[in-house]
Amino acid sequence: MRQKGILTVISGFSGAGKGTIVRELLDRYDEYALSVSMTTRSPRPGERDGVEYFFTDREHFEEAIRQDGLVEYAVYCGNYYGTPRAYVESQLAAGRNVILEIEIQGALKVREKFPESLLIFLTPPNAGELKRRLEERGTEDAEAIARRLARAAEESEGVEAYDYIVVNDNLEECVEEVHRLVGASRRAPVRSSRFIREIREELQDFVKGVQS
Amino acid sequence: MRQKGILTVISGFSGAGKGTIVRELLDRYDEYALSVSMTTRSPRPGERDGVEYFFTDREHFEEAIRQDGLVEYAVYCGNYYGTPRAYVESQLAAGRNVILEIEIQGALKVREKFPESLLIFLTPPNAGELKRRLEERGTEDAEAIARRLARAAEESEGVEAYDYIVVNDNLEECVEEVHRLVGASRRAPVRSSRFIREIREELQDFVKGVQS
Repeated sequence: MRQKGILTVISGFSGAGKGTIVRELLDRYDEYALSVSMTTRSPRPGERDGVEYFFTDREHFEEAIRQDGLVEYAVYCGNYYGTPRAYVESQLAAGRNVILEIEIQGALKVREKFPESLLIFLTPPNAGELKRRLEERGTEDAEAIARRLARAAEESEGVEAYDYIVVNDNLEECVEEVHRLVGASRRAPVRSSRFIREIREELQDFVKGVQS
Repeated sequence: MRQKGILTVISGFSGAGKGTIVRELLDRYDEYALSVSMTTRSPRPGERDGVEYFFTDREHFEEAIRQDGLVEYAVYCGNYYGTPRAYVESQLAAGRNVILEIEIQGALKVREKFPESLLIFLTPPNAGELKRRLEERGTEDAEAIARRLARAAEESEGVEAYDYIVVNDNLEECVEEVHRLVGASRRAPVRSSRFIREIREELQDFVKGVQS
């Protein structure tokens, strides 16, 4: 029987390199699939509909909410972000680790619905580096960067909810480390529940056999 | 500053190969140190005082309890088992991962006192294999084996308290997997608390800087 995939949530501070890490995992290993989120925010330069996000309007997004067609959704900086459910479930059943690149509110909702999901938080090595990366990106003005730093300060209060916190100091090492952590996470009891149930039943059978 | 070692508890069913895995970790990697337990049980053939265990009597063991000289202790099959505290703390401070090979009662007490400890549970691939290994060991009669199987059935109820459950199907793979899991565990928030505190403080400083 095929092993079910792990629903892998990747979150992290703006400028932590989430997008790059996720792309590298998908390029290097067949066992990953990307869940493309739906959002009402405007595309950034270079972003393609159906690749980075499904870009939609508020009316269509709210219809998806009403139809229970989203694993989770959240509002961030005034826009909706959500994860369409059908694709996620089919890929997990096919043995693929489905990656959701979402922020902390969404991550906590996913964990609630899928207790066996894996939550990974990416961070630059320190806050100064985070600020520098945001400034270098050059797509946002000082006010937007200040807003992102304030948001990062808020998010940092929630990182204990994650399974792993990974420092992205070196892209190459970070990709491989995330991949190893996904593998390691299979050994957590919450993701070994079938094995545990089976060995318990067998042991109980031996004990009953001795007693009878 | 030197990274503190991880207090690594290795438990598992009788016959899961705990002793062999622990010896291999110690042989292969300098970063591990073994905590030698103190016990009132009799030595098995080949066991040496101060190597596999410190063998002692009930009177001396109870004196150590009164002196708060043990990280944990427990009674198992009518004998005391405990972990002398001083050695554990000095090795952790020196950056070594201290391995405690103890059973589930002790593991839970260690976790209570050391929330950042790592709990790994070893198991054969299934209960039939466990029974076979106990029988092949040839050191115990049928009644003792039945008692160990009953104990395993009890212990199986507690495995969700562990961080990782590792199947020892192949010694070579199992040793390396345990080693990787110890590494992975450094990324759990409970073992990254200093990093988290520092980045939070830095982010708060940026936010205050912007507001003032």
